[in-house]
Amino acid sequence: MSNLDWTTAITSPQPNEIRLRGYRIDELMGRVTFGQAVYLALKGELPSPQVGRLMDAMLVSSIDHGATPPSALASRTAASTGATLSASIAAGVLSINRYHGGAIEGCMRLLREAIDRLDGGHHPAEVASAMVAELRSQKRRAPGFGHRIHTDDPRTKRLLALADELGVVGDGVTMARAFETALEEGLGRRLPLNVDGALAALLVDLEFPSELGNAFFIVARVTGLAAHAHEEMNRQRPMRRIHPTDHRYDGPAPRELE
Amino acid sequence: MSNLDWTTAITSPQPNEIRLRGYRIDELMGRVTFGQAVYLALKGELPSPQVGRLMDAMLVSSIDHGATPPSALASRTAASTGATLSASIAAGVLSINRYHGGAIEGCMRLLREAIDRLDGGHHPAEVASAMVAELRSQKRRAPGFGHRIHTDDPRTKRLLALADELGVVGDGVTMARAFETALEEGLGRRLPLNVDGALAALLVDLEFPSELGNAFFIVARVTGLAAHAHEEMNRQRPMRRIHPTDHRYDGPAPRELE
Amino acid sequence: MSNLDWTTAITSPQPNEIRLRGYRIDELMGRVTFGQAVYLALKGELPSPQVGRLMDAMLVSSIDHGATPPSALASRTAASTGATLSASIAAGVLSINRYHGGAIEGCMRLLREAIDRLDGGHHPAEVASAMVAELRSQKRRAPGFGHRIHTDDPRTKRLLALADELGVVGDGVTMARAFETALEEGLGRRLPLNVDGALAALLVDLEFPSELGNAFFIVARVTGLAAHAHEEMNRQRPMRRIHPTDHRYDGPAPRELE
Amino acid sequence: MSNLDWTTAITSPQPNEIRLRGYRIDELMGRVTFGQAVYLALKGELPSPQVGRLMDAMLVSSIDHGATPPSALASRTAASTGATLSASIAAGVLSINRYHGGAIEGCMRLLREAIDRLDGGHHPAEVASAMVAELRSQKRRAPGFGHRIHTDDPRTKRLLALADELGVVGDGVTMARAFETALEEGLGRRLPLNVDGALAALLVDLEFPSELGNAFFIVARVTGLAAHAHEEMNRQRPMRRIHPTDHRYDGPAPRELE
Repeated sequence: MSNLDWTTAITSPQPNEIRLRGYRIDELMGRVTFGQAVYLALKGELPSPQVGRLMDAMLVSSIDHGATPPSALASRTAASTGATLSASIAAGVLSINRYHGGAIEGCMRLLREAIDRLDGGHHPAEVASAMVAELRSQKRRAPGFGHRIHTDDPRTKRLLALADELGVVGDGVTMARAFETALEEGLGRRLPLNVDGALAALLVDLEFPSELGNAFFIVARVTGLAAHAHEEMNRQRPMRRIHPTDHRYDGPAPRELE
Repeated sequence: MSNLDWTTAITSPQPNEIRLRGYRIDELMGRVTFGQAVYLALKGELPSPQVGRLMDAMLVSSIDHGATPPSALASRTAASTGATLSASIAAGVLSINRYHGGAIEGCMRLLREAIDRLDGGHHPAEVASAMVAELRSQKRRAPGFGHRIHTDDPRTKRLLALADELGVVGDGVTMARAFETALEEGLGRRLPLNVDGALAALLVDLEFPSELGNAFFIVARVTGLAAHAHEEMNRQRPMRRIHPTDHRYDGPAPRELE
Repeated sequence: MSNLDWTTAITSPQPNEIRLRGYRIDELMGRVTFGQAVYLALKGELPSPQVGRLMDAMLVSSIDHGATPPSALASRTAASTGATLSASIAAGVLSINRYHGGAIEGCMRLLREAIDRLDGGHHPAEVASAMVAELRSQKRRAPGFGHRIHTDDPRTKRLLALADELGVVGDGVTMARAFETALEEGLGRRLPLNVDGALAALLVDLEFPSELGNAFFIVARVTGLAAHAHEEMNRQRPMRRIHPTDHRYDGPAPRELE
Repeated sequence: MSNLDWTTAITSPQPNEIRLRGYRIDELMGRVTFGQAVYLALKGELPSPQVGRLMDAMLVSSIDHGATPPSALASRTAASTGATLSASIAAGVLSINRYHGGAIEGCMRLLREAIDRLDGGHHPAEVASAMVAELRSQKRRAPGFGHRIHTDDPRTKRLLALADELGVVGDGVTMARAFETALEEGLGRRLPLNVDGALAALLVDLEFPSELGNAFFIVARVTGLAAHAHEEMNRQRPMRRIHPTDHRYDGPAPRELE
């Protein structure tokens, strides 16, 4: 040990025995889903299988959203110049920030502030109304509500239904719903909870720190970025002009899950 | 549509209906694991639940390996200067290349070349011996064999046992085992299949293209990079000197999976 | 033109005539230094040859600082895994942030706040004393002052002498000197202006926006990052453990400029 | 010193004395241009003022090329999501590879192979003809020749004129001209030396290693990337769709250098 020695609480890679947060990785393999392992790695504790199933659903919800998001375009742009797969993925990750993916963290902070205000004995609807009025007077938008494409995001519905079914519903989801109502009343039109908002509500109920909202999204979306970079390398010619919206889907036709 | 319009076969994000490779994402959520969804996103087809369970185990095997790998150190170095979480993760991803993570792709190519040679009616042991001799005469190492820490990597054992149990064993695993034997015979000492080699054998049997070996590793390891960057931001002071090896694990004590 | 058309005020690349901020690039070539061109590109106007010479000196001052800074270590870490030169340089750039290079911007903001306070007819020494007292009561450090290695940074001295000689001294330099004195009086020990602080003072006097402080540093340091990545690829073996401080210089012996 | 100690030949940062390749940085400041310092940092020796002036012109030639190149678009895409300046610049650097900027290195290798063949006493025109015929039979393009916008690149002309004027013309430039003629004869149409090709010819004559061609381009272009990222942050709204070609220049009108 030198005077620079330091400690870490994530993984202990001893010879022939690797433990993640205390659990042997080889024991985890085959017995927990990747969603459970992500929870364990980031939060330090192993979640129940129910929470694990929810984590998997949350990760699946964000795995990709087509070629329009800036992260997909950045990965494709780098790939198109001859970048390696890791450099292309990194270029995409660099485009996941406050305005893309960041609504998860923003909404987590909003919901947590609202939950703190509940402590005074206030009702969720009351707190949400007051906070919506404050946001409006500051001309700020509520992160996690509204979407430029989806008016009724199927991922949101499914996430909330699953959380319900798996018994993982707490103040986060309650407050998210209260905000949805307060926004409709305040604005006179629906501004529904979007997938970022639903993820935020669940991550609050799963007690993730707010600053990991972006990490959660990156963990899920990196798969999509890899798929886009790989497709760009294989289907397109180098240095083409990549139009941000004039693209069509030509993959497998709609099919049902059996 | 302009003259720049183009097509993509990954995701169709229609209003209120998002389909990944033809399947509605909201239907996938809760019904497939993240491992299955990764397979679907990268390969275009939904794997069986057995293959999905193997995929999850494979992803879990590579989720983190402590603070020594260069990708963890690069993420921590960036985080230590005040980089955002996405920039810190990207710095780590940029360090996953030929010499770190790249053995998966290298071993996939080796195994595929060996499998091609089987077509002439040759026996795996024979092909492996010939190829080991060739590698030695070119003073090249066999990617996917040997490890600087683990002589008997528990992840390898578990991956192969699971593949066996789930019935996902093909020429990739057979050839990997043949190489292990041929290397021992050729070198006079054991150079066991490491976790990269085991992943390579399984990815060959799952028919992943070789150039996605690195993508698979990045998808798994990004979680570890997020954990390291987050820990650096929370437990260490900015701009500390990060020693590459003088660190100890101080997380949860060894514990058993229930 | 589509409904997505947009405008940019940097460069006009017409066929056979490329103009940077209105000037033909081929006319600039050979007649302005790179320092002048950097000023033109970032600020929009061509500086006088005197300011150009100062810009060149400022860029030279920050071109490299050996292997200890985190940006050099990050570039070397990526290079050591087999990253390309562009990916290695990018990993280094990602490590230039608030705590590394960021003191330039921090000090620019400090000096600008002080200069604003001068408007009330106050004396620089008075303003600096008041602000140093405020920083101390908030337990905050003054960015741009003090250095962990250099007690008397030769780059600072040279930058200020050159600015003097070239007649580019304004409120920025005046306030920087006033802070140096106020810090010594307030703390009872010298905390001299460092190279970041000197650059900040000059960039304020050259009327660069504060948020470009980091850009200036990156423009200069990218050369050093390229040199480190290139040296790592050529002189070191892949995947070595890169010690952050146990390195010695073994290049050309001290020599004088003729 | 630990068992991990290592050496570097770039910069010696002793307390109060920083030497770049042996020269005190404070002595270099004000006496050499940034172009000379780039040469010194990358190649290890200080060039003559003539070569320094050429280096500056070479760097100026590549400082920016408007908003169409993928590196500018990648930087803008990241900036548009709320990325920091360093992360935005890094995303752009990641897009400088084989197909964008990479022609410099490609052409350097081509010219060096040609120069090697001269050793047998062959004439440049003869060698160029033979190599053009070889490229055509392999259906490969000569890197560094032809441009999608410029038929008569003013930067090329200026670079070669300057090199002539400053007396820095060697086999690189001679062979580049021979290839230009051989390509016209072989293809029946002009495929003129472009700016990448001219830079390649000069870098060969300045004895830069071929693998630093990309580094040279990155050092120059990082300024343009910073300008694009900064403009995006200041003039555009977050998350806009960035059209790759439908943009116009609205900066300062054409003006003459005095």
